[in-house]
Amino acid sequence: MKRSLKEIAKLVQGRVVGDGNVEIAGIASIRSATAGDLVFVEDEKNLGAALESKAGAVITGEFAAGKPSAKPLLVCAQPRLAFARAAQVLSAAVAHVEGIHPSAIVHPSVRLGKNVSVGERVVIGEGVEVGERTRIGSGCVIGTRVKIGSDCQLYPNVTVYAGVQLGDRVIVHAGAVLGSDGFGYVRDQATGRYEKFSQVGRLEIGDDVEIGANSTVDRGALDVTRIGRGTKIDNLVHVGHNVQIGEDVVIAAQTGLSGSAVVEKNVVIGGQVGIADHVRIEEGAILGAQSGIPSKKVIRGKGVVFWGTPARPIREYLKELAVLARLARRE
Amino acid sequence: MKRSLKEIAKLVQGRVVGDGNVEIAGIASIRSATAGDLVFVEDEKNLGAALESKAGAVITGEFAAGKPSAKPLLVCAQPRLAFARAAQVLSAAVAHVEGIHPSAIVHPSVRLGKNVSVGERVVIGEGVEVGERTRIGSGCVIGTRVKIGSDCQLYPNVTVYAGVQLGDRVIVHAGAVLGSDGFGYVRDQATGRYEKFSQVGRLEIGDDVEIGANSTVDRGALDVTRIGRGTKIDNLVHVGHNVQIGEDVVIAAQTGLSGSAVVEKNVVIGGQVGIADHVRIEEGAILGAQSGIPSKKVIRGKGVVFWGTPARPIREYLKELAVLARLARRE
Amino acid sequence: MKRSLKEIAKLVQGRVVGDGNVEIAGIASIRSATAGDLVFVEDEKNLGAALESKAGAVITGEFAAGKPSAKPLLVCAQPRLAFARAAQVLSAAVAHVEGIHPSAIVHPSVRLGKNVSVGERVVIGEGVEVGERTRIGSGCVIGTRVKIGSDCQLYPNVTVYAGVQLGDRVIVHAGAVLGSDGFGYVRDQATGRYEKFSQVGRLEIGDDVEIGANSTVDRGALDVTRIGRGTKIDNLVHVGHNVQIGEDVVIAAQTGLSGSAVVEKNVVIGGQVGIADHVRIEEGAILGAQSGIPSKKVIRGKGVVFWGTPARPIREYLKELAVLARLARRE
Repeated sequence: MKRSLKEIAKLVQGRVVGDGNVEIAGIASIRSATAGDLVFVEDEKNLGAALESKAGAVITGEFAAGKPSAKPLLVCAQPRLAFARAAQVLSAAVAHVEGIHPSAIVHPSVRLGKNVSVGERVVIGEGVEVGERTRIGSGCVIGTRVKIGSDCQLYPNVTVYAGVQLGDRVIVHAGAVLGSDGFGYVRDQATGRYEKFSQVGRLEIGDDVEIGANSTVDRGALDVTRIGRGTKIDNLVHVGHNVQIGEDVVIAAQTGLSGSAVVEKNVVIGGQVGIADHVRIEEGAILGAQSGIPSKKVIRGKGVVFWGTPARPIREYLKELAVLARLARRE
Repeated sequence: MKRSLKEIAKLVQGRVVGDGNVEIAGIASIRSATAGDLVFVEDEKNLGAALESKAGAVITGEFAAGKPSAKPLLVCAQPRLAFARAAQVLSAAVAHVEGIHPSAIVHPSVRLGKNVSVGERVVIGEGVEVGERTRIGSGCVIGTRVKIGSDCQLYPNVTVYAGVQLGDRVIVHAGAVLGSDGFGYVRDQATGRYEKFSQVGRLEIGDDVEIGANSTVDRGALDVTRIGRGTKIDNLVHVGHNVQIGEDVVIAAQTGLSGSAVVEKNVVIGGQVGIADHVRIEEGAILGAQSGIPSKKVIRGKGVVFWGTPARPIREYLKELAVLARLARRE
Repeated sequence: MKRSLKEIAKLVQGRVVGDGNVEIAGIASIRSATAGDLVFVEDEKNLGAALESKAGAVITGEFAAGKPSAKPLLVCAQPRLAFARAAQVLSAAVAHVEGIHPSAIVHPSVRLGKNVSVGERVVIGEGVEVGERTRIGSGCVIGTRVKIGSDCQLYPNVTVYAGVQLGDRVIVHAGAVLGSDGFGYVRDQATGRYEKFSQVGRLEIGDDVEIGANSTVDRGALDVTRIGRGTKIDNLVHVGHNVQIGEDVVIAAQTGLSGSAVVEKNVVIGGQVGIADHVRIEEGAILGAQSGIPSKKVIRGKGVVFWGTPARPIREYLKELAVLARLARRE
């Protein structure tokens, strides 16, 4: 959906330098931009390339405001953020088919909000509630009594176990599994065999959460697994039973959180991190990729980066690596 | 399904202290218990909280038998195990729809046992056999000639490749893939290109195995991949071709076993462990989370914990970490 | 499909020693071979066992040509490769159902090549093109405008997002997700909340690529994610947005590649390796299992093995491990 640069400026609270009537049709990287595309730069280093690109206009920071430019500029406090928001408006043009595909199997008791879209071959169980404008992709299986908020998007082949609750604007990528049984067994001392411990708790996912492709999130054993508002989870992440994740947490791909781990708000977790059971990661800590937090540990430090297994402040870890390398070289 | 405490005591081989006629309707954690719920405690520390909770009765060990209690107690040798067993009886109340959903596509040659349940949109290929009371969730795809035992439960969207065999009481969580091709190629020295090596072997999964959501288990290349009776596998675990896993093994999330690895009975493997090809983990060894076992290594030691990459006895590993930290601090 | 040894010799460019008219019905390992099976040995060590097995014939190298043998031999420059090629011919006997299963939902605009097979419950979106003889397994969901080449095989329950392109002879195992959104957000400094950055780029997968079960490959953010011809990817691997993978790369299970990483041709990557964003792995390097490459690093060295986190040449790493172990023992 084409917009004038002026209109976009209004939406992203930026200011136009140059011709605000230029028509913008899409977004692109500097490298691939064609006429009518909007691009962005965050620093002076890339400004030249942006101005020389084929783009129709450039979102920039204040640093570019005084520079000579043959292209119209859109000056914003946070250029990357403004670009992301402009992109949403420009790509909203993609039409979505609304309604329930005739091949979907929806239990008669299901309550669907207005303008819900249910794809081919979806199965929705008894007692499910789905909010307005939510889109459920082909092949998804939604268990009984699940509640899904408004404006959510489930991509194809997602499985949601019975009773799981999702907030509004939740995005779930293909193949993800929500609400599976946690990994809990009791060993019978007499026979040496493991017997299944009850995994009958709940899973609650807050508003604005995004969950990556083929990630798995277990329900609570007896209580509840919770993912807080605005938390973003990448692909192939494992979240164990009873885990409590706060708001605005970022978890990169292939990280695993064991049972009853607590992650407070604003924590950033790299890829392939391993968090053992009953660990607590306190507010704002940053865990480097592949680091490991042993059982029951507490990680504390807003803005402090931790690395290694067992994870320690990165400064300590790098010093240890340096000492060890020096000793080995001396041999 | 409500039961009297007396009835439950009989099922879990415990002894009632107090009123055995109290009606139990469900299970809960101490925190979330309401009237009619059964809770459990394993040690004196949590006994007070259990007795003060709203629970209708408490499963405990002998330690609590003489304590004053306003609630009836159910004294058991293994309280957690007794609770797990009680939970199974109490939750058996959930009704399962039996029969084959009309949207399932079942080849006419398929042999289904009594009371089998086949969910919406399931596909079952030629020559498949399924035992009694087994439940196959919506969207599962069962390849030709697969054999599934009795009392199994496959959650939605599981894929079982052709010829795979599952024992009785096997649980497979959503999105798991059983019997996929192993990762085997031969490089043509002339062209430098990889060509696919045959992955035509089998996969046999024993009784009472549980496999987590989105885990993948490859078939043998020419021979067979085997998972022994009672082994429990968490989410997102990878089991390569020709792997042999013994009985009563526990494998936590995101662990990977490369081709031809052997894991003997009673081994415990933490999360994100990496086991290279042709490794042998001998009976009863314990591998700490994120540890790594290099190609062809043998790990030996009943009850010994190994940690690190390459994995070594945890005592050695912790000593190394301590020495290194001290050296770094001195700098 | 039975073949005489002579015929197979022609196909794999080997030379028969002994009776070339013996009929070969299948392939097997030495252990499990029965009459009519073809087996192979790569070195003298296993020759005896092969000759004593029940196999009908043995593929070997030149080393065996002069040895006395009661079985016909097929002498080849690369026995394992010859065996793999023979296996393909012998197993081509498995019949594939061609045509579109009536339960598949194929948009009328879709263009299917000759002899395409579309399984039960497949969904194929608007504008999709599929080449000749390609087989799409049950439950796959193929998004709008996807292009799939000829002779591809998609196993069941694969999800391909809109616009993804696959070359010829691509194999995708069950549950894999191709073209999901990358993990990109912009934090609004004012609110502290993460907003989604556009993930509207493309994904292009070259000829002869194989992708393992439940692996996930993200589309580009604004540009393109690329996987080069002949590259083989194991199960549960994560490939982030904008990643560029060259030709003939091998990536073992559970490895993760973060956004914008570059992997040049002929690289070999072990299991559970973590490659951070903007890393470059240069031609022919070898990354040991579980190694980790920090953000923006360049790894250089044809045939050099790197190990550890941060990854270093394995010789250095092993020396460091040895030094540390010695220090700890001295304590």
